[in-house]
Amino acid sequence: MIDSSLNLQAILGLPTVQPGDDLAALLISALRAQGGLRPGDILCVVSKVVARAEDRFVDLADVRADPTAVKLSRVVAKDPRLVHLILGESQAVSRVAPGVLIVRHQLGFISANAGIDASNVGRDGDWVLLLPKDPDASARALRQRLEEAFEAPIGLVISDSHGRPFRKGTQGVAIGLSGLPALLDKRGEADRFGKILEHTELPLADQIAGACDLVAGASAEGIAAVRLRGLSWQADESARAADLHRPATKDLYA
Amino acid sequence: MIDSSLNLQAILGLPTVQPGDDLAALLISALRAQGGLRPGDILCVVSKVVARAEDRFVDLADVRADPTAVKLSRVVAKDPRLVHLILGESQAVSRVAPGVLIVRHQLGFISANAGIDASNVGRDGDWVLLLPKDPDASARALRQRLEEAFEAPIGLVISDSHGRPFRKGTQGVAIGLSGLPALLDKRGEADRFGKILEHTELPLADQIAGACDLVAGASAEGIAAVRLRGLSWQADESARAADLHRPATKDLYA
Repeated sequence: MIDSSLNLQAILGLPTVQPGDDLAALLISALRAQGGLRPGDILCVVSKVVARAEDRFVDLADVRADPTAVKLSRVVAKDPRLVHLILGESQAVSRVAPGVLIVRHQLGFISANAGIDASNVGRDGDWVLLLPKDPDASARALRQRLEEAFEAPIGLVISDSHGRPFRKGTQGVAIGLSGLPALLDKRGEADRFGKILEHTELPLADQIAGACDLVAGASAEGIAAVRLRGLSWQADESARAADLHRPATKDLYA
Repeated sequence: MIDSSLNLQAILGLPTVQPGDDLAALLISALRAQGGLRPGDILCVVSKVVARAEDRFVDLADVRADPTAVKLSRVVAKDPRLVHLILGESQAVSRVAPGVLIVRHQLGFISANAGIDASNVGRDGDWVLLLPKDPDASARALRQRLEEAFEAPIGLVISDSHGRPFRKGTQGVAIGLSGLPALLDKRGEADRFGKILEHTELPLADQIAGACDLVAGASAEGIAAVRLRGLSWQADESARAADLHRPATKDLYA
């Protein structure tokens, strides 16, 4: 899995990404100033910058809340237009409370507000930012450009920060990926004492997103990408972020 | 939070820890062979080795399941003696299903089987391994010895791997800590665009445990400790792992 040492490098110098920007070109330029990418590196890119480049902005002034959203907005004490957008991005509502609206996103994961970001959008007025439409596809496209630029096979993870049951604080998770496994299944392997491991599935892409969140998430400077170097991993062209989702029918807390 | 580069170093060469071993001395010796500890380093130690050193082994042959445990064991299809031990370590049962027993541990977190490890104990017979009795105290004691040996103020995290709702796989969390904050509260701080961050609490100790799990958890070689270097953090002598727990009354999924 790892030789023994892992390096996480925040990719500095990325400008504030705007709709229509060539994010791959911006990343390539920033990476060039910090040693580029080598074979086996994994680049973790924060979903927000992908969403900005893909112009996933919505002006709440353009949104008309339907009656379902208006009714729910009273329960959760949120702007009915925002609630309308959240429901539009969701498969199902998971939990509601004053100030809280937790849903199963159309992409399959459970998160507050369908990942819609209202706090850090950087526009005047009531703009919000939806998640990328198809983060696995975004990861694939970014990865292809980066692999061409650096002539190196890499993995690419698009991360978001989710709250979680039981424990305080938000944590980085993978909402898109390309080139690497989402999940490593160690079940059936013998442990170091020769017994069989019963339950060990390792959510590799989430672990990577979480480690990068330790670097990126804490910074007020808005670090948008982190390079992870030193991990041994097998290429996987078929993995998708949804591999990490427990189906609702098998989730005791859904 | 971070300059720009973070290094995670697996601490190799630790022997299989046995009850009564001086774990601090073993860690000091292994660390000396890998550059020791510097001021600001954080050492993450896997709970299992702490539990082994503290002789938290129980022989199931010595356990007599009470009627509650016997009854519950039929629901969860587990050894009634193991269920008895799990209930003894717990405040409350959270969810049950065939093969699944999720509880609120006496220490306050929610996890499967109260963290009791039956898969990787390394003893003949029906031995299992409980979690350390007081992981914050264990962290404090280890930290003191390590700080003396390396003449450097450090942080110490004791990690365990927990399953989680919604998403597959296990993830490293902090069950004990000393010297560093458990949680960073960024609420009320302005984001890079000047708006006020609404919800951002960063579970620093969990993020560290998760990053170290990426290094340690994946290895069949049983990496028991990981050194994290390059993070900027403020010393905190009053933080405890329980700072990370959301109270049951505020948890929509408890």
